[in-house]
Amino acid sequence: MRTQVAIIGAGPAGLLLGHLLRAEGIDCVVLERQTGDYVLGRIRAGVLEQVTVGLMERLGLDARLKAEGLVEEGFNLADGERLIRIDVAGLTGKTVVVYGQTEITRDLMDAAPSRGLEVIYGVDDVALHDIESEAPYVTYRKDGTEHRIDARFIAGCDGFHGPSRKAIPASVAREYERVYPFGWLGILADVPPCNHELIYANHERGFALASMRSHTRSRYYVDVPLTEKIEDWSDERIWDELAIRLGPDAAAHITRGPAIEKSIAPLRSYVFEPMRYGSLLLCGDAAHIVPPTGAKGLNLAASDVHYAAEALTGFFRRSDRDAVAGYSAKALARVWKAERFSWSLTKLMHRFPDDGPFERAMQVAELDYIASSKAAQTSIAENYVGLPV
Amino acid sequence: MRTQVAIIGAGPAGLLLGHLLRAEGIDCVVLERQTGDYVLGRIRAGVLEQVTVGLMERLGLDARLKAEGLVEEGFNLADGERLIRIDVAGLTGKTVVVYGQTEITRDLMDAAPSRGLEVIYGVDDVALHDIESEAPYVTYRKDGTEHRIDARFIAGCDGFHGPSRKAIPASVAREYERVYPFGWLGILADVPPCNHELIYANHERGFALASMRSHTRSRYYVDVPLTEKIEDWSDERIWDELAIRLGPDAAAHITRGPAIEKSIAPLRSYVFEPMRYGSLLLCGDAAHIVPPTGAKGLNLAASDVHYAAEALTGFFRRSDRDAVAGYSAKALARVWKAERFSWSLTKLMHRFPDDGPFERAMQVAELDYIASSKAAQTSIAENYVGLPV
Repeated sequence: MRTQVAIIGAGPAGLLLGHLLRAEGIDCVVLERQTGDYVLGRIRAGVLEQVTVGLMERLGLDARLKAEGLVEEGFNLADGERLIRIDVAGLTGKTVVVYGQTEITRDLMDAAPSRGLEVIYGVDDVALHDIESEAPYVTYRKDGTEHRIDARFIAGCDGFHGPSRKAIPASVAREYERVYPFGWLGILADVPPCNHELIYANHERGFALASMRSHTRSRYYVDVPLTEKIEDWSDERIWDELAIRLGPDAAAHITRGPAIEKSIAPLRSYVFEPMRYGSLLLCGDAAHIVPPTGAKGLNLAASDVHYAAEALTGFFRRSDRDAVAGYSAKALARVWKAERFSWSLTKLMHRFPDDGPFERAMQVAELDYIASSKAAQTSIAENYVGLPV
Repeated sequence: MRTQVAIIGAGPAGLLLGHLLRAEGIDCVVLERQTGDYVLGRIRAGVLEQVTVGLMERLGLDARLKAEGLVEEGFNLADGERLIRIDVAGLTGKTVVVYGQTEITRDLMDAAPSRGLEVIYGVDDVALHDIESEAPYVTYRKDGTEHRIDARFIAGCDGFHGPSRKAIPASVAREYERVYPFGWLGILADVPPCNHELIYANHERGFALASMRSHTRSRYYVDVPLTEKIEDWSDERIWDELAIRLGPDAAAHITRGPAIEKSIAPLRSYVFEPMRYGSLLLCGDAAHIVPPTGAKGLNLAASDVHYAAEALTGFFRRSDRDAVAGYSAKALARVWKAERFSWSLTKLMHRFPDDGPFERAMQVAELDYIASSKAAQTSIAENYVGLPV
């Protein structure tokens, strides 16, 4: 098979890129190791920046997002009894939208056939070849048969564990990493959220986040040591812990219900440079991971895809080779700022086992300062809604 | 001897407090271990916030400050080739004034006799007694004779190593501390500054600061490991190092000259709580230390003195006991915010020996973000000019 862009990975990054390329008349094929149902079953982020919403709008695939998404005008930082509201809309004139990553993926998946976007699910042994050349190709196995796709470019949208990043020689790569000494234990339940806006809480027992996917589906987290096992956390134990950490006001409004998903995810900051090597472009988790504090993961994947689509459109529609050459630097400039925001919000809102009284006092002082300063609140708000692309 | 307020320490904090109390007709005596000349010989900070300038104005002791002080409308953050100017005046409507701590001290010292402020220099063995009572007293020796001053309050303005803080029982005290793995090597020279505004530089060889005391007197710093000895740093070696770390533009304007002072000072963040115990009020370095990054030390002492004078005036002039009771919380609220700013600017602008590539990348990302965001610049600027009292 021959195409212009072979896209590896049919998560939101790969599907979004595929749609954007197809909208420009560029040929592409999306390869996915899992089945479509498996991809839809992954519970992930749910807060969309305007850049992300804007891409769905541009594709004309935002009908359900507009109908079902919850527009959020602010969010809250809690510390013990205190609640600091960040008036995102008032400070930036922008909002975010709560709409599950799963729903975005479904919208993109459902629209693929009518937009002429080919997605091949259930492929094994995906391998990238000759990426340093102008004639790269991808091989994979499906139903026992070997396949090969020749392309002008390969887009690696295959997440942290996919083969794309690993195809880039170590000699040209730089890796930056920070691992955090805790994980987020998440619970998803079909109950109304305790608050119409997110609450990030830094409690002496640890971090908690009250979030939601809709008016009737809630997503909560508490941080736990990485040694914890999910079997030791009954639904009741999680609800009890949330009620303490989120503080009395939020606790009074928590509706408990059975978990429909429950898991512990480690927190990591990771950046791989460069994001382009030869004819391979990396997008999203394939190139970088943020801790979930601040909800930047999916949104960064979307802005990568925005830059990648722009670069590839420049190449195929305007013969602009510089567009592709500039992709890595452009994408990384935004990635690093989001990495910084996620890291600093993680540091502000979690109790680190190695922190002493001075470090804790710095958290309190920073929250005091934020509570008192419009400039500080604006800085947080503009990062939360997403810096300009 | 009997007085209303016995002030320990005749640095800028003690003298400023003495003058403010005298201006309200409150009796006080200032005790100082050193001679006046010794105090004037200490080379310290030189950037004044408006709060500090305002206190000198209120006392009518700002004539020389107004005539000789350099009004600064901005300052700069450098990183390699890059220079980010923080337009302090444009962003906050306020400015800072470069005027040496030595000059402030001289102005306050010179005005003491005419304002009826008694300062006793060269006292030994200062000790605080009965501070938990309403009849505390101070004993000291001078010229071989024992003396005693009975007072209603004692103000501890005697710096980090003075006896005042140590008089507060450990059972009620909380200490917060962070020691940094480097010191600042400073050089003072009678040469014109390389730039009319301060430059804080984060270079791969380490930190540097280009500062000044006047149009003809410059103050520069580089950070060095704490194991370094001042004898190993000739003037030429310091100038050479500054020329590298400050970057080519600044280096081209450096005028070299013989050091009139040269020393290595360790960096420390330290806060002692409470700042009042019984009849003892602590002000300035007696209660807290900031790393010099951001020039908050003298200014924090001045705002402590502002709150202390307000409290003591409330007590003596309006019989308001709550004013004194509230001193510690009021002063600490501002202290902690300045501690946070000094700590975060120190972390942003220094290379820490334990930092890896990720931490360095976070510095670069933060500088990139600051360069691109008015909100971030405003946040830095409002801290630099001093948060409201």
